Amino acid sequence: MSKENQKSQENLAENPKKMNYTKFSQEGINVKKEDDLSEWYVEVVQKAEMADYSPIRGFMVIRPNAYSIWETIQKYFNEVMEKHQVRNAYFPLLIPESFFKKEAQHAAGFEPELAWVENNDNSEERVAIRPTSETIMYDSYSKWIRSWRDLPLRINQWCNVLRWEVKQTKPFLRTREFLWQEGHCVYATKEECDKEVRLFLDEYKKMCEELLAIPVIEGTKTESEKFAGAYYTTTIEALMPDGKALQMGTSHNLGQGFAKSFGISFKDEKEKDQIPWQSSWGVSTRLIGGVIMVHGDDKGLVLPPKIARNKMVIVPIFFKGSEEKVKKKAEEISKNFKELNPIIDDRTEYSAGWKFNQWELKGIPLRMEIGPRDLEKGQITLVRRDTGEKILIKESDLKKEIPKILENIQKELLEKAKKSLEKNIIEVKSYNEFKKAIEEKKMVKVYMKEDAKTEEKIKEETGATSRCVPFDQKEKNEKCIFTGKPVKKYTLFARNY
Amino acid sequence: MSKENQKSQENLAENPKKMNYTKFSQEGINVKKEDDLSEWYVEVVQKAEMADYSPIRGFMVIRPNAYSIWETIQKYFNEVMEKHQVRNAYFPLLIPESFFKKEAQHAAGFEPELAWVENNDNSEERVAIRPTSETIMYDSYSKWIRSWRDLPLRINQWCNVLRWEVKQTKPFLRTREFLWQEGHCVYATKEECDKEVRLFLDEYKKMCEELLAIPVIEGTKTESEKFAGAYYTTTIEALMPDGKALQMGTSHNLGQGFAKSFGISFKDEKEKDQIPWQSSWGVSTRLIGGVIMVHGDDKGLVLPPKIARNKMVIVPIFFKGSEEKVKKKAEEISKNFKELNPIIDDRTEYSAGWKFNQWELKGIPLRMEIGPRDLEKGQITLVRRDTGEKILIKESDLKKEIPKILENIQKELLEKAKKSLEKNIIEVKSYNEFKKAIEEKKMVKVYMKEDAKTEEKIKEETGATSRCVPFDQKEKNEKCIFTGKPVKKYTLFARNY
Repeated sequence: MSKENQKSQENLAENPKKMNYTKFSQEGINVKKEDDLSEWYVEVVQKAEMADYSPIRGFMVIRPNAYSIWETIQKYFNEVMEKHQVRNAYFPLLIPESFFKKEAQHAAGFEPELAWVENNDNSEERVAIRPTSETIMYDSYSKWIRSWRDLPLRINQWCNVLRWEVKQTKPFLRTREFLWQEGHCVYATKEECDKEVRLFLDEYKKMCEELLAIPVIEGTKTESEKFAGAYYTTTIEALMPDGKALQMGTSHNLGQGFAKSFGISFKDEKEKDQIPWQSSWGVSTRLIGGVIMVHGDDKGLVLPPKIARNKMVIVPIFFKGSEEKVKKKAEEISKNFKELNPIIDDRTEYSAGWKFNQWELKGIPLRMEIGPRDLEKGQITLVRRDTGEKILIKESDLKKEIPKILENIQKELLEKAKKSLEKNIIEVKSYNEFKKAIEEKKMVKVYMKEDAKTEEKIKEETGATSRCVPFDQKEKNEKCIFTGKPVKKYTLFARNY
Repeated sequence: MSKENQKSQENLAENPKKMNYTKFSQEGINVKKEDDLSEWYVEVVQKAEMADYSPIRGFMVIRPNAYSIWETIQKYFNEVMEKHQVRNAYFPLLIPESFFKKEAQHAAGFEPELAWVENNDNSEERVAIRPTSETIMYDSYSKWIRSWRDLPLRINQWCNVLRWEVKQTKPFLRTREFLWQEGHCVYATKEECDKEVRLFLDEYKKMCEELLAIPVIEGTKTESEKFAGAYYTTTIEALMPDGKALQMGTSHNLGQGFAKSFGISFKDEKEKDQIPWQSSWGVSTRLIGGVIMVHGDDKGLVLPPKIARNKMVIVPIFFKGSEEKVKKKAEEISKNFKELNPIIDDRTEYSAGWKFNQWELKGIPLRMEIGPRDLEKGQITLVRRDTGEKILIKESDLKKEIPKILENIQKELLEKAKKSLEKNIIEVKSYNEFKKAIEEKKMVKVYMKEDAKTEEKIKEETGATSRCVPFDQKEKNEKCIFTGKPVKKYTLFARNY
C-alpha cells in the first residue's frame, strides 16, 4: 500500500463506524436546512465530526475536522499580525478578583459570567478563570511601559476563555469555553489607536471573505451593544440563513479608561507624563460555526477549498477485472496533487454511492471519480461539492483545470453568500414594518436616533438587537422612525446568536 | 526609514526602558552562573524578557521572546505528528469529579493538585481545571471507537493545564499553569502501543537535540516515578548545570486500565469484543527553561540559532561623517538576509558597547558590526554569541559563510552540552559514594535492584530521585549496592526540578 493510500486509510479509519453512538441514522442528514436550521446544524456538526458534546453543559469537544479549520485561521492571521508587528505571548488563565474591580464597567459586564476557582492559596482574594484578558495583561503593561519609545506595544495571545453563559449554548456559535485570539495594543495617541482599531477590523473582514467565503458588514456598535469598558466598539456582522446575525469579530478602542485604572502611563519626548490609548480585538472558534451555517446544505457540510484540509477525494469505481488498474491510477493522480492532500477511498466494503454521500456529508470540495471506461477514454469525472456539477475532463488537463475549479468554488461560495446577504437586508419605514421584517427573518435597515431605551424596547418586543451602524453608507438627511428626530445614518437590527 | 529598520525599531521599543521596574540594574546580569544558578536564572528570565511574574503565585506571563520559541517547537512537532498521522483537536478545560475517580491510581496522583471551580450549574458534581486530559478525552474515545477499523486513533492537543503545586515554583521549569501538547493514542495490540510509545519518545529526543541543542537520556521510569495510572512510563532526562535533572518529556504506555475504566472497547475482525491499549505523551513550556539553563552564560541568554526568532543583530558603528554610509550598508545586508530576520540597532542614543551587551543578554546568536574602516576594506566583523569569537570576513563571502557559522553554533552548543552531560554522570559503588556524588551535584549511575522503599529512603536522605533506567546500556551481571542482589541494568539518580 502506498504511503498516500495508507494515509487515506488512516483518515477513513475515523469515519463511518463511529457514528453508531449518535442518535442519528448513518445515512446522511435527516433534516432539511430550510425546515429546521437548528436541528440541521446539530446533525451536521456531529455527523461531519466537527464537534461533540462534553459531559459538562455548554462545553464542547472540537474534533480534528473542525480543529484543522482553526489551525488554518491561526496560520492566516499570524501572518497578518506579523506584517503589522504584533507579537504573540501568553498570560495566566487565572485573574484576581481585584483586577476586575479596577474598571467598573468592565467588571459589571463580566461579573455574572465568571467562574471562580476554589482551591488556591492566594487567601486574600478569589481568582476567576479569564473571560477575556484585558485586566491581567494591562497589569503587566503597567510595568513594561515607561517611555514613548515603548509604544506602540502590540501583543496578541491565542488561548481559551470561559464565560458561564446562561443563554442557550450551541457548538461553536455560543459555548461557555471557546478558543480565540485577543490582540491588545497600546498607542501614544487617539489617532494611532483609531487607525489600528480599523486596521485589524479590516483584516478580519478580509479573512472572513477571502478565507471563509463569508461576507460581513463592518460598522460601529451602539452604546448599548459595545464591549464592557470600551470607548467604542467596531464589529463585523454576518447573516445566518435563519435571519440571525452572527458577530464574527470585534475591534475596540478602549480609550484611556483601562490605562487610568491600571496605572499605565509613559513619558513623552519632552519627558512629560501621558496616558496612552488602548485597543483590543478578537475572533474566535465561532467562525467555524459561521462556515457550517452559511455554506452547508441538505447533504451536509460544504467547505470552501481554502479551509479544507483535504481539498479532494478520489473514488476509484470498481468493476470486476479492472480494480487494480483504477486503483493504480488513483494513487498516481493522488501523488500528482499532493498539495491538495487528497483522500483515496478505495474501500471495497462500501458502494461508490455510499462513499459519495459520506464525503459530501464531510464537505470535501471536489470529488474525482475514476472508472475503467473513463480511463480507456483518457478522461476523468470531477464533481463539485457546492453545486453538484459534473465535469468531464481529459486526464492531461487535470493539472491545469483542478486549481481553476477550486478557485471558482471559493469565489462562487462567497458570491452566493453575498447575494443572500443583500437579499435579506430590508429597509423599514415604521416600527410595524420593522416587526414584520424581523418575523420574516430579515436583517433590518432602519433610520433611528440612537437611544438605549428604544433598543431595549425593540429587544423585548422583537428579540432583535442593533448589530451595527455600517461604515459603508452615505450620510442622508433622514428622520428617526420612532421620534422623527433628524438622523444621518442607518442602523442594522437583527436577532442574533 | 526602511521597513526593515522600522521593524528593528519596533523590536527595540520593547527593550531597555522597560526594565526600570525590576529590582535589577539595567546593565546586565549581576550574578555569575556558577555562583548562584537560581538567582542567575531568575535574572536572565526577566532581563532577557522571557517571562514575568503574575500576581498569583506560581503563575507566569510568557513574554514574546519566549513564546516565539514555543511557536517554533509547535511548528516542528506539528510536522512530526503530521508525519505519524496524529491529528490535533481540543477538549474541554473542565473535568467532572467523577471522571477522576474512574481510574483509582490516576485519581490518587492528581487529586492533591486539582483546582476546583465554584461557579457551575452542574449541581450534582464538582468540576476541576484539567491537570492532564486522559479522563475527558477517553470519555469521548469510548463513544468514537467501535471497530478495529477505528484504530489506531491518534489525537493530540496543544493546551494549558493547571496543577496546584506545593513545591517551589520557577518560571518555565515548574509553574502551576503551563502550556503543553498531550498526544493520546489507542491501539488494538500491546505491540503497536509499545512501538509508538517509543516512537514519540525518540521524536522528543531528536527535537531536544536537533532543535534545542540539549542532549537527553532516554529510559524507563521506575514504578515509584511512573505516571499516575500508567502501565509504564518512558522519559527523556536532561542535566542542568546545578546537577539537577530536568524531565524534558514523557511517553507512557497506559496499558488497558483507562480503557476498562472508561468503557473503551472495539470489535476485532472476527467481531469479537476487545480492550484496546493506550498511550499518552507530552512536552511542555518547561523545555524553554531547559534552553535558558543549559546554554546561558554570565552575559545572559544564549539561543541556539534554530530557535532564535532573530538570528542576527546588525550594529552599525557610527563615526562622524560616515553614519549614512554604514546605515545604508546595514540595511542592504539586512535585506539580503531576510530569512534570518535580522535586527538593525541603529539607535544613536546608545553606544555600540551598550548595544553589544543588550543583544548578548537577549541571546541573539550572531552579531554583525559594520564600521566605516571595515567598509573601506570590503570586510565585516561577525561575533558569535556562544563563544565570543570574532570573525573578520570579506563582504562577498557573507552569503556563503553566515549559514555555515550558524550551523556551527547550533552543532557546537549541542556538543558542549553533551560533554558536560557525560562529565557529570558518575558511577558509584556504595551508598556513601552515592551521597557524596549527589552533594557534588552529579547525576549518579548506580546498579540497584528496583525497590520503592529504597528509593523513598534515598529521596529523604539525599533529595535525589531515580530519573530512569536508560535504554542505551548493555546488560551486565552486577550486584545491587544496597542488597547485593543480582541486577543487570543501572539506574540514574539525581535531584530534579
